[in-house]
Amino acid sequence: MTLIGIDIGGTNSRVGTVSPEGRVLVRAAAPTDAARGSAATITTLLDMIHQVLSDSHARLSGPSAIGIAISGPIDVNTGIVSNPYTLGGWPPTDIVSPFRAAFQGAVVIAENDANAAAVGEWRVGVGRGANRFVMVTLGTGIGVGFLVDGQIQRGSNGSHGEAGHLVLDPSGPSCYCGAKGCWESLASGTALSNRLKDPSHMDRADYSRAIEQIAHWTGLALVNLCAVFSPDAIAIGGGAGAQFDLMKDSISEVMHQHRRLIRTDVPVLAAQAGDDAGLIGAALLAKDRQG
Amino acid sequence: MTLIGIDIGGTNSRVGTVSPEGRVLVRAAAPTDAARGSAATITTLLDMIHQVLSDSHARLSGPSAIGIAISGPIDVNTGIVSNPYTLGGWPPTDIVSPFRAAFQGAVVIAENDANAAAVGEWRVGVGRGANRFVMVTLGTGIGVGFLVDGQIQRGSNGSHGEAGHLVLDPSGPSCYCGAKGCWESLASGTALSNRLKDPSHMDRADYSRAIEQIAHWTGLALVNLCAVFSPDAIAIGGGAGAQFDLMKDSISEVMHQHRRLIRTDVPVLAAQAGDDAGLIGAALLAKDRQG
Repeated sequence: MTLIGIDIGGTNSRVGTVSPEGRVLVRAAAPTDAARGSAATITTLLDMIHQVLSDSHARLSGPSAIGIAISGPIDVNTGIVSNPYTLGGWPPTDIVSPFRAAFQGAVVIAENDANAAAVGEWRVGVGRGANRFVMVTLGTGIGVGFLVDGQIQRGSNGSHGEAGHLVLDPSGPSCYCGAKGCWESLASGTALSNRLKDPSHMDRADYSRAIEQIAHWTGLALVNLCAVFSPDAIAIGGGAGAQFDLMKDSISEVMHQHRRLIRTDVPVLAAQAGDDAGLIGAALLAKDRQG
Repeated sequence: MTLIGIDIGGTNSRVGTVSPEGRVLVRAAAPTDAARGSAATITTLLDMIHQVLSDSHARLSGPSAIGIAISGPIDVNTGIVSNPYTLGGWPPTDIVSPFRAAFQGAVVIAENDANAAAVGEWRVGVGRGANRFVMVTLGTGIGVGFLVDGQIQRGSNGSHGEAGHLVLDPSGPSCYCGAKGCWESLASGTALSNRLKDPSHMDRADYSRAIEQIAHWTGLALVNLCAVFSPDAIAIGGGAGAQFDLMKDSISEVMHQHRRLIRTDVPVLAAQAGDDAGLIGAALLAKDRQG
């Protein structure tokens, strides 16, 4: 029983064979290069699957289940991803069928990447034991997954809330989501590079200040998540999440300032499965679907 | 089997006998006058219970279950309310024991008023049939209850999130919660009267403008609730919620502006049980506890 996990991010994509316990056995990574279109990305991913299967000596048996974690709005019932934003202009794309066609007999599922990462961290990372768990992926964009007893919380039509676009400052920058001053516009990897592109923001002190701002807004966003969801634990992952050590004091400070009524005294932890959380979670969700 | 519902608000308190189907049979109301202290309020409430029981011709059998909906942070496990804010300086108060002592044999429970109102609207009001339901009480303060399949969503220690204190504008007014520009500071009944106390804000046009502002911030708060919770239906109740007709267009407009990624095309409805929602919900929760 070979499990494959795939994580399609705005910047990089990852493929791995995953053990039933959620350990990555063999992995491969490549730039997503979404601008070349979804067909090119899918071809690259299929090559990567063959490569990891070969490296796992599992080429002959093939995968029994494939889980795809993908950035942005995805209809988990149809497998259609509608994300022209962080996936450079893709039209609505059926991300599931090409993998079903290539690996007949395999169970193939797709899931929002933040939800998949939440499942990964809850099963094998820092979310273990949390009754109400929030996973934040700070990357090119910002994604948030919510679990109760390990189950993904979503709208009754299967929709994902997109809590990365919480409005935090109506006088903030415009976002592709239509809002001004949403969390992603203030604190994503894209927001960081926008700040650093400014010629007046190129030295080390200004880099620190940019990280500080991202941490501040992330702290405020976590206050709002606590007000609505009352989590027991929060994990921060994704590319920018790798800077968690630089951000954690500012995040704590903002949360502490808002502790009077809202229960913000919640552990905020660096994601443990790191970049693997999404593909591990997706692979395990696909395994669950095998029954 | 006589059910009693009590709703202790920052301004007024209500008591009623409630049928097992959630209909209010006899009701009484009085100013909460919290500044006189919790003991005085409890004495008034006990008098009101005797009055409605007498009017219901149920004085001899007494109540079998009493449900108390109360403004502000309450520990539903101990019945202790810790709300010095909208209940004028009350120290932490056991709100349950005096009613247990007065009506021995009766089941007595207490619940955050927004949660109780959510249950009331879900059972007998506009929330019927909603899988994921949000109830907002716009009154002296702002409370929010979240139900999934009719069950109150809360922190794993029983805590209430206090989503009325979502931060919406960090350059906004200071709130007793410790935040600047939280929803309650921008859009509660208190915020409205603060605006109208300003001598330059006394005419009809300025009243309209104040309502418009409250509607605007409430719309933005609902966008954030959609981003985190993905509701199927939202109800607006409470004292200021009675102005819903004046607010609904502005609320819709703000939600529509944010529809690109977040599923904000959710029905937003005036609460149907009105001021009775909290006491109905509390009474039915107490009935459920009887087993």
